[in-house]
Amino acid sequence: MPPMPISKSPLYKIVNPQSIAIFGASNRYGSMGTNLLNSIQSLGFTGPIYPVHPEKKTVMNLEAYLSVRDLPEIPDLAIIVLPTKLVPEILDQCGEKGIRHAIVVSGGFTEVGDEGKNLQEEIIRIARKHGIRFLGPNCIGAVNPYHRFNTTFFSYEQEPGFIGMASQSGSFITQMFDYLKRFGLGFSTGFSVGNEADIDLVDCLEYLGACPHTKVIGMYIETIRRGRKFIETARRIVPHKPIVAYYAGGSEAGRKASLSHTGALSGPDRLYDGVFRQSGVIRAFSIEELFDFCWCLGACPMPAGNRVIVQTNSGGPGAVAADVCSREGLVLNPLSEKTRQALSEYVPSTGSVNNPIDITFVRKNMDFFLTIPRILLEDENADSLLVYLLMPDQSIRRAMEAHGITGEKAVTEAKKFVDEQTRSVAALMREAVKPCIGFSFYTRVNRFVKNLQDEGVAVLPSPSRAARALSAMVKYVERRDRMIQNSD
Amino acid sequence: MPPMPISKSPLYKIVNPQSIAIFGASNRYGSMGTNLLNSIQSLGFTGPIYPVHPEKKTVMNLEAYLSVRDLPEIPDLAIIVLPTKLVPEILDQCGEKGIRHAIVVSGGFTEVGDEGKNLQEEIIRIARKHGIRFLGPNCIGAVNPYHRFNTTFFSYEQEPGFIGMASQSGSFITQMFDYLKRFGLGFSTGFSVGNEADIDLVDCLEYLGACPHTKVIGMYIETIRRGRKFIETARRIVPHKPIVAYYAGGSEAGRKASLSHTGALSGPDRLYDGVFRQSGVIRAFSIEELFDFCWCLGACPMPAGNRVIVQTNSGGPGAVAADVCSREGLVLNPLSEKTRQALSEYVPSTGSVNNPIDITFVRKNMDFFLTIPRILLEDENADSLLVYLLMPDQSIRRAMEAHGITGEKAVTEAKKFVDEQTRSVAALMREAVKPCIGFSFYTRVNRFVKNLQDEGVAVLPSPSRAARALSAMVKYVERRDRMIQNSD
Repeated sequence: MPPMPISKSPLYKIVNPQSIAIFGASNRYGSMGTNLLNSIQSLGFTGPIYPVHPEKKTVMNLEAYLSVRDLPEIPDLAIIVLPTKLVPEILDQCGEKGIRHAIVVSGGFTEVGDEGKNLQEEIIRIARKHGIRFLGPNCIGAVNPYHRFNTTFFSYEQEPGFIGMASQSGSFITQMFDYLKRFGLGFSTGFSVGNEADIDLVDCLEYLGACPHTKVIGMYIETIRRGRKFIETARRIVPHKPIVAYYAGGSEAGRKASLSHTGALSGPDRLYDGVFRQSGVIRAFSIEELFDFCWCLGACPMPAGNRVIVQTNSGGPGAVAADVCSREGLVLNPLSEKTRQALSEYVPSTGSVNNPIDITFVRKNMDFFLTIPRILLEDENADSLLVYLLMPDQSIRRAMEAHGITGEKAVTEAKKFVDEQTRSVAALMREAVKPCIGFSFYTRVNRFVKNLQDEGVAVLPSPSRAARALSAMVKYVERRDRMIQNSD
Repeated sequence: MPPMPISKSPLYKIVNPQSIAIFGASNRYGSMGTNLLNSIQSLGFTGPIYPVHPEKKTVMNLEAYLSVRDLPEIPDLAIIVLPTKLVPEILDQCGEKGIRHAIVVSGGFTEVGDEGKNLQEEIIRIARKHGIRFLGPNCIGAVNPYHRFNTTFFSYEQEPGFIGMASQSGSFITQMFDYLKRFGLGFSTGFSVGNEADIDLVDCLEYLGACPHTKVIGMYIETIRRGRKFIETARRIVPHKPIVAYYAGGSEAGRKASLSHTGALSGPDRLYDGVFRQSGVIRAFSIEELFDFCWCLGACPMPAGNRVIVQTNSGGPGAVAADVCSREGLVLNPLSEKTRQALSEYVPSTGSVNNPIDITFVRKNMDFFLTIPRILLEDENADSLLVYLLMPDQSIRRAMEAHGITGEKAVTEAKKFVDEQTRSVAALMREAVKPCIGFSFYTRVNRFVKNLQDEGVAVLPSPSRAARALSAMVKYVERRDRMIQNSD
């Protein structure tokens, strides 16, 4: 079956609207609707926004309308952030106006019990009557930074990214903006699906599978409502785009939490593990892992196999990376004879040309970051490279001082020095045909790390996390290839 | 057996010296010795430091001496950062001078093969002859911020902390300064043991067990050389102080990495698991976990059992915390009837008074952070509380703007607001008799998180990490109590 053109997706107009009507925004801080409108405005949405408000003439400096009937055009999308009991009537009015897409942010539906369940059935009926497709209720909306569109609670302040996300928790969309920014990452598109009264995870999968900005799909799952369709859809996508999922409903407590969160019944862990395996979906076991895996799968070329070289100048981090790689099923072969020879002039007597290769120290920084990785990437016995990245600002500062460069000038010179060095290292790591993943205990406060991440290199925050992410890549390739083979 | 008085430890003078001789420091940037001297000076060590240098009259603005014989007194400690082949002679001279404690930083001993092995045996002989006790070789030294003493590669720039660390990798001492600082944490004392030619992990355990500043002991282990003594020593310490260990030699690749790192032969994973269980040592499975576990064990009161309440206002993070708790053997009981009644006026209709308790939103911030935790901490069906902490700077800024407070004044007012709120929240969380651990995807860039951490509250960077750390505490208490019972 050919993939669906993205414009046919019920989600297309929802995250690419030309015009928006918003219900529930006011001039009062603290109201949810106002916050969402704030987010839309602050990302610089370019189309007209029509606040509908029963009293106000203006809302957040926009002309407001007493009723959706009064709008000068039929907006592509209605965003509804009203008290629960008002939702059915407003949705009906939207339908009468001709609006065919909506995001229902309001909560108080199936997740609160029987009365809410009836209300949810009512809005489904109304939507069907008018042919409205909608996200929610009880969701936080969506973000598509490529379209300068963000209906979620927080401002989206970074560049658009390559991670497409579908989440049964709004938190793992909107609260991840700041989290991802700390690694230089961002979303291509993100959906908070809420109670999935109409549009569900599977629809999001289809959209993200077709989305040209999305290199990898992340999912936060508390339940899968359409199991067979999920597997079918994922299997169509996985051969050309990786999918990573975190499943929170696997334990007794997780199941109960999901139930009261989105009113959904989750299943036993093993069942979901089976669904993921069958679908070719890679399972992550924490939110950090979910995004680590997405990062490497989206930023790096795919490994041809499970053989890895670990390069370090610190024995401990190297040993940890090696140990975790090994536990994760990756193999650390000895370096080839050719590699050992090529390395001989760069590795001091204190160093070790085993795998992990522990350089201990180098005469020139760039030997460690450039010359040695270049040699290692050519080793025929390895499919990937993990490199420990330690370029302490403190050492650079001391070096400057040692050369008599101090004060403001030292700061400028140090920056220039680091910037020059990272450019070439980034080019090497990014353009390698094998995955070349950095790991460091430093964050982006360290300019070297920041520069590399900004240039598209995956630099993970610890040896364990880098090793597990690489292992996820290997798993993906195995599942993908098996899938392609079976379909031949 | 009564615990050894700390002053009897061979490590006492090593991390509490009154005076230091240093060999291998020069005026040349980039030399290891110079860097170490730099670290000692920058922490403000108050005693005399005597650089010994064959040529220079001054080293780093200190009077230098041609030979250790020329020193005006017998220093408590010699730090040797010289080329391998010079070490034996210099150590011998130190002994003749009367020096009885040393740190041998130089590498090139057992870790590089047979020749190095002979050299190592030689320095052991020399040390024994003079009664010298020493750390190393092939180590990075030690840090004791309470004594303003730091011989490691990087400056120690935070407050002294409560984590005592013994590590077979220098990286996991010196490179963790920056890492721990990012959580408002620090070391009480840290030892890099290197090849353990004389002093080993067990000696460090004894020291840290007796150290009054050390609330919890962390260990990075590639091998244990004195197995029985390790178990004995740990069992003496665990009843009054928790020990957490990361073991890197458990896998095939980990074993090989350890061998070339410190020349030590590690054993199979199960063997070490057994040793840890027998010793009452809590095992961590990543470096992050090692410090997470130490953090909670050192900062919080111990839980009386495995029953936890998860409090959140975001369904997703709450569900993840619940799921991981459950997987880790923690139990989420329903809230007691008394608790549910006490909560009723604070939880809106969209919220859920199950466990996790999902407040969704509150009229007053302090209801979430103060009133509700206070009620939950009194629930008789729970031994601990995990609280999701989300106080976005952005929302506070928007609130200020909404009240017409803008520009510089908004920044000041927002700070004041957050500072006031955190003081009372910190007091509640810190003084609770049950462990009350925060979790947040925010870092210390978020002032609320920073303030809480600075006031001694454990705020972990994700639901999974908080849940696993709490589980480690429960495991510790179980092992400790079993140990105390058996010894009765």
